[in-house]
Amino acid sequence: MALDLLSPSGIAESHERIAPHVHKTPILHSRTIDALVGATVLFKCENFQRIGAFKIRGATNATALLSDSARAKGLATHSSGNHAQAVALAAQRTGIPAHIVMPSTSPAVKRAAVAGYGAHIIESGPTIDDRESTMERVLAEVDANFIHPYDDERVISGQATVAREILREDGAIDTVMGPVGGGGLMSGTCLSCHAASSKTDVIGCEPSGADDAARSFATGILQRNESVDTIADGLRTNLSERTFSILKEHLSEIITVTDEEIGNALRFIYERLKIVIEPSSAVPVAALIQQRERFAGRRIGIIVSGGNVDLSALDFGRWRGAFTD
Amino acid sequence: MALDLLSPSGIAESHERIAPHVHKTPILHSRTIDALVGATVLFKCENFQRIGAFKIRGATNATALLSDSARAKGLATHSSGNHAQAVALAAQRTGIPAHIVMPSTSPAVKRAAVAGYGAHIIESGPTIDDRESTMERVLAEVDANFIHPYDDERVISGQATVAREILREDGAIDTVMGPVGGGGLMSGTCLSCHAASSKTDVIGCEPSGADDAARSFATGILQRNESVDTIADGLRTNLSERTFSILKEHLSEIITVTDEEIGNALRFIYERLKIVIEPSSAVPVAALIQQRERFAGRRIGIIVSGGNVDLSALDFGRWRGAFTD
Repeated sequence: MALDLLSPSGIAESHERIAPHVHKTPILHSRTIDALVGATVLFKCENFQRIGAFKIRGATNATALLSDSARAKGLATHSSGNHAQAVALAAQRTGIPAHIVMPSTSPAVKRAAVAGYGAHIIESGPTIDDRESTMERVLAEVDANFIHPYDDERVISGQATVAREILREDGAIDTVMGPVGGGGLMSGTCLSCHAASSKTDVIGCEPSGADDAARSFATGILQRNESVDTIADGLRTNLSERTFSILKEHLSEIITVTDEEIGNALRFIYERLKIVIEPSSAVPVAALIQQRERFAGRRIGIIVSGGNVDLSALDFGRWRGAFTD
Repeated sequence: MALDLLSPSGIAESHERIAPHVHKTPILHSRTIDALVGATVLFKCENFQRIGAFKIRGATNATALLSDSARAKGLATHSSGNHAQAVALAAQRTGIPAHIVMPSTSPAVKRAAVAGYGAHIIESGPTIDDRESTMERVLAEVDANFIHPYDDERVISGQATVAREILREDGAIDTVMGPVGGGGLMSGTCLSCHAASSKTDVIGCEPSGADDAARSFATGILQRNESVDTIADGLRTNLSERTFSILKEHLSEIITVTDEEIGNALRFIYERLKIVIEPSSAVPVAALIQQRERFAGRRIGIIVSGGNVDLSALDFGRWRGAFTD
């Protein structure tokens, strides 16, 4: 525990720690997409990960790092999305309780998934303040181990293993692109890429309707989203000081994309790669397509962060599945 | 060419012949589906195949079996779906022309895909008789090599390689289930399974709205669909005498499913396996779920035949993604 979790060796140890419990997800290619961009694009498919998203990596790492006596008290978090399922599964696997605060606005299907892992769900009001105050009340009662979705070195070190698996592919990677929400995934991605080589650019991709990271990056001062409006429901959160400081040091840039660009990229991925992804995962694809002239000739890793989506809420008819006409 | 293409060694040679030009597609698993059925279910994912469906196997085999002088005359077929793309790609790869008769009702996206492979598209009227008469006229003009979608031993031998790849997995397979349209895929599947072991049941799965195979199987006499009504657009065709005679000899049974069962199975696969499949591919999954008590404890291979679907035409809100409530 004295080890720096965010150092290259700390991330390597996180990788060994979680490897027995998470999938080494496949990397997919598409001739069509390579031809469109004029580049070699590797899609790292965390939609095929356990619980359907990369979040299980960080939650598993944080759980494993607890002492036996601490771990026995169980886990706790607040989340409406994939992190809730990740903590619930990590607890179930370890045989300990999980206390998950979910906003009253969470879709029934997401609550059912969390309940399916045997977690105890506590309903809160819809705002982030509601969630946090409910979480404090719960923690005062149960004394469980709080695992923040991204503002936690154990979590960041776990999420860093996604990029580490991309970098272990044959051949150098020029650029890694992924979605920015709270910044846990992209902080870890920066650290893994920085550890491997100074030559790999890391580009964060963000919806224009929740662009706190782009504004923070542009001004050098941490900004918040006062309101959010995007279909990329996993990316509505704000950076923390911790994730922002890592991104500020290592991220090359942030590209923002509109919901229309996200929808077009989503449909394109469904039709070309034949995989189901959530809107947040289409964000780096949309950024790649938006700026494709710049990326010609490069070897690019795209982090497909997850595949948990309410299909009945998607209106594919609004989006184009092709970019060639 | 003297070799019997439908014998075990003929199928093995077809496999060697096409292997350099088609993908060995992955086999996926789902803990949720295994738990639902109480069985081990292997999904053979031909949606990840070139052109997005198994049809490239048969078309590639037929093309490769032509003499050089015959092949130079080009390929021809009539199809509104995946076989059209398969013949177009096989021709493009070989550097020969393809003449594809497509009904006027074909979706623009399917025509664009065929045209994208450089094929010459000839429009016909909407009925199967229209297609066939237009095809005859085209063949009288161009003298190209007609490749039937399923009533052709070269095609059946190529499609047989799907099941052959399933059977090469570790461990015995008790049952292989796949969709029945014209019967080319399932004829080949029967022959591969029969060649490997007499212990593997092969079950054909068919939409109740295009149940010519089920009626043919029940009566022992080849029946046709007088009208068709199913979302499984790849399975609206009729068996031929050739495919029916193979199925009659080797198929264990046919299970029919309703469009509602197909839609529920489709959404279930999207949500659980995170893959995009076409409605026809959900038919064997629907059959498995319908009769799941019978399959408990078995090791089952499901042929996921393809992933070419107009997403804007799917109404996911009508279907359930879960079978546990």
